[in-house]
Amino acid sequence: MTEQNLQVLLTARPVGRPSPDDFTFVRTAIPSAGEGQVLLGIRYLSLDPYMRGRMSAAKSYAASVEIGQVMEGGTVAEVIESRHPEYKPGDIVLSYSGWQSYALSDGTGLRKLAPGQAPVTTALGVLGMPGFTAYAGLLLLGQPKPGETVVVAAASGPVGATVGQIARIKGARAVGIAGGPEKCALVRDEFGFDATLDHRSPSFAEDLRAACPDGIDVYFENVGGKVWDAVFPLLNTFARIPVCGLVAQYNSTGPFEGPDRLPVLMRDVLTKSLTIRGFIQREFSEHRPAFYREMAQWLAEGRVKYKEDIVQGLESAPEAFIGMLEGRNFGKLIVQVA
Amino acid sequence: MTEQNLQVLLTARPVGRPSPDDFTFVRTAIPSAGEGQVLLGIRYLSLDPYMRGRMSAAKSYAASVEIGQVMEGGTVAEVIESRHPEYKPGDIVLSYSGWQSYALSDGTGLRKLAPGQAPVTTALGVLGMPGFTAYAGLLLLGQPKPGETVVVAAASGPVGATVGQIARIKGARAVGIAGGPEKCALVRDEFGFDATLDHRSPSFAEDLRAACPDGIDVYFENVGGKVWDAVFPLLNTFARIPVCGLVAQYNSTGPFEGPDRLPVLMRDVLTKSLTIRGFIQREFSEHRPAFYREMAQWLAEGRVKYKEDIVQGLESAPEAFIGMLEGRNFGKLIVQVA
Repeated sequence: MTEQNLQVLLTARPVGRPSPDDFTFVRTAIPSAGEGQVLLGIRYLSLDPYMRGRMSAAKSYAASVEIGQVMEGGTVAEVIESRHPEYKPGDIVLSYSGWQSYALSDGTGLRKLAPGQAPVTTALGVLGMPGFTAYAGLLLLGQPKPGETVVVAAASGPVGATVGQIARIKGARAVGIAGGPEKCALVRDEFGFDATLDHRSPSFAEDLRAACPDGIDVYFENVGGKVWDAVFPLLNTFARIPVCGLVAQYNSTGPFEGPDRLPVLMRDVLTKSLTIRGFIQREFSEHRPAFYREMAQWLAEGRVKYKEDIVQGLESAPEAFIGMLEGRNFGKLIVQVA
Repeated sequence: MTEQNLQVLLTARPVGRPSPDDFTFVRTAIPSAGEGQVLLGIRYLSLDPYMRGRMSAAKSYAASVEIGQVMEGGTVAEVIESRHPEYKPGDIVLSYSGWQSYALSDGTGLRKLAPGQAPVTTALGVLGMPGFTAYAGLLLLGQPKPGETVVVAAASGPVGATVGQIARIKGARAVGIAGGPEKCALVRDEFGFDATLDHRSPSFAEDLRAACPDGIDVYFENVGGKVWDAVFPLLNTFARIPVCGLVAQYNSTGPFEGPDRLPVLMRDVLTKSLTIRGFIQREFSEHRPAFYREMAQWLAEGRVKYKEDIVQGLESAPEAFIGMLEGRNFGKLIVQVA
C-alpha cells in the first residue's frame, strides 16, 4: 500500500463533551508541492484546550472549523519537498497544519526551528503558544510584584507551569493547583512552586485559604469552575485576573443553575477595584521576540522547566484531546504523528 | 432658642432599602474651634450613591460608618471661626464634614474654593468627586477612541452626564440611558448625547441595540441590573468596562436567583478580550490637577454642562437619599443645609 495522508476531519459539532464520533478519519493522496509551495510531513501535533472552541459554531475571536474540514492545530513538521526559495528538504518548521500527516504550505505562518537549541517539541509548548500565553498574560496583564501571591490552576500543564515559574523569577509567590498527588508532586518538586494544592481534596477551598495567608494578588484564570469559587473570596484589593481559558466550562451547556453569582462578582469588582481581562496571546505579538529570548535563557539556566505528555499516532488524537479537557493529560499534550 | 448643631446619625444598618428609621436627628451644642482648628458652618451637603455602602457593615474600600456616628459626606462649608493660620472667617471650603450643620476641622482634607470661578456647589458635582470619577474612569480606564461608542446609564446624573460629554469631546459617540422622558430630554437636548434611551421602555434592550449599530466599545458601569443585561451582548472585542457603581443592586440582599450569569460573563470576557475594571476615583489622585484645569475650561467653554437637584434642609436628607437610590433625583443631588 502506498503511503497516504491521514486526516482527522471535524464531522459533527459536539454538544457538551466531545465524542470520538465527532471526528472522522480519512486517507487521501499525499499532495505535491506546487510552485512556491512546500510539502510538509507532520512530526508532532499540539493538542490544546482552545480547540474545543473551534469545534463550536459560537462566535469567538477565531473562526470555527467548518464541518468536514481538517481539525486545526499547531504542528512541528519537516519539509519533504520544496518549491519555495526559503525552504529546503529537511528543514524543521513550526506550522499550523492541523490534524493530518501531510500538508502543503506557501510559507505563510511557517517558522524555521533550530533543532540544536531545544527539543523541537518545545515550539509547541514552553517555547511556543502556551509559553507565550503564560508570559504575556502574567507579565503584561498580571504584572506581579515581588512578594505578591500569584495563583494558577492546571499548574502541571504548559501554561500553568510556566506562569508559576515566571512568577517566581519575578519575585512573587507561586501557588499552583493541580489534580491528584502525582501532578501536585511535579508542580512542587520539579517546577518549584511555593505551595501546591489538589483541587480534588474535599478541603480544597480551606487549603487554598491557608496557602494564601496574604490573599491573592494575581489569579491567572485558565480553568474557571470550582477553582474560581475558591479563589474569588481571597482576591486582594487591586487584584488582577488575566483570563486565558475556562477549560472547566468548555463542555458545559447553559443555562447555568442559580444562584446567580454575577451580582456578587460585580460587587467585589467594585469594592476591591479588581481587574478582569480576557486575552489571547496574539494581541501581544510585538512582545514575542522578547519572549523567545528570555524564555530560551530561562530554559538554558534551568530556571524554567517543562513536562510533555506525548501520545503516539494521529489515531490517538481524538481520545487524547477529549481526555485533556478532563485533565487526564500530564504535561503538555503532543501527538507524535510520524 | 439658641442655635444648635443639627446632626444626622446612622442608628441602624439597613437590610435592603434604607428607611428613614435608620437615621436619627440630634441637636447638640455648636462646638468652638480649639487651637489649630476651624469651625465650619455647612452650607451644602452632597448626597451620593456610595453612601449606601458606608451604611453597611460589609468590608469595602472604605470603613463603614459606625452605628451612632454622624453620616459621612462631602460638604461645602463656610469658615465661621478660625484658630488655623490658613483659614479666616468667610472662607468657603470643600470639606468632608458629613450630615450636620456645623463641624470642627483641623484643616485636613479641606480645600479652599474660589466662589467667583464657578458656583460653589459644583465642587460637589461636576468639579468635584462625581466629575473626577467620570473623568478618571472614562479617560484612564475606558480610553475611548474617536468613532467608538460609549454607553453610560444614569446619564442625567452627575457622573453619567459628565462621562457622555467628555466622550464626545474625545470624538466618541455617547449613548445615554436614563429613566423617563424628562431625564432623557435633558440628556439629549442639554448634554448633547448622540442617542438617549429610556430604560423604562418595554423595548429598552432592542432600543439599545438599534442605538449601537457598531456595538459598544466602552460601557461605563454605574448601575448594574437590567442595563447590564442589555449592554452585555452588544460589547465589542476589546471593550472596556470601568465599574464605578452598581446602584441598581445596592439595596439587594443575596443570594440572587438563577440562572447563574457568571459562566456566560467569563466566556465573553475570554472570547471578546473584555476588560472589567472596578475603581474608586481616589486611586487616580495624581490626575486631579489636570482634571480641575480641563474641566474648568470645558465648563467655561460650555462644552460640559451639568444639572443640580437641590433640596432644602438637612431634615430632607434621608428621604432625598433614599429616593436617589431609586432614581428619583433629577441631576446632582445636594442638600442646602443653611
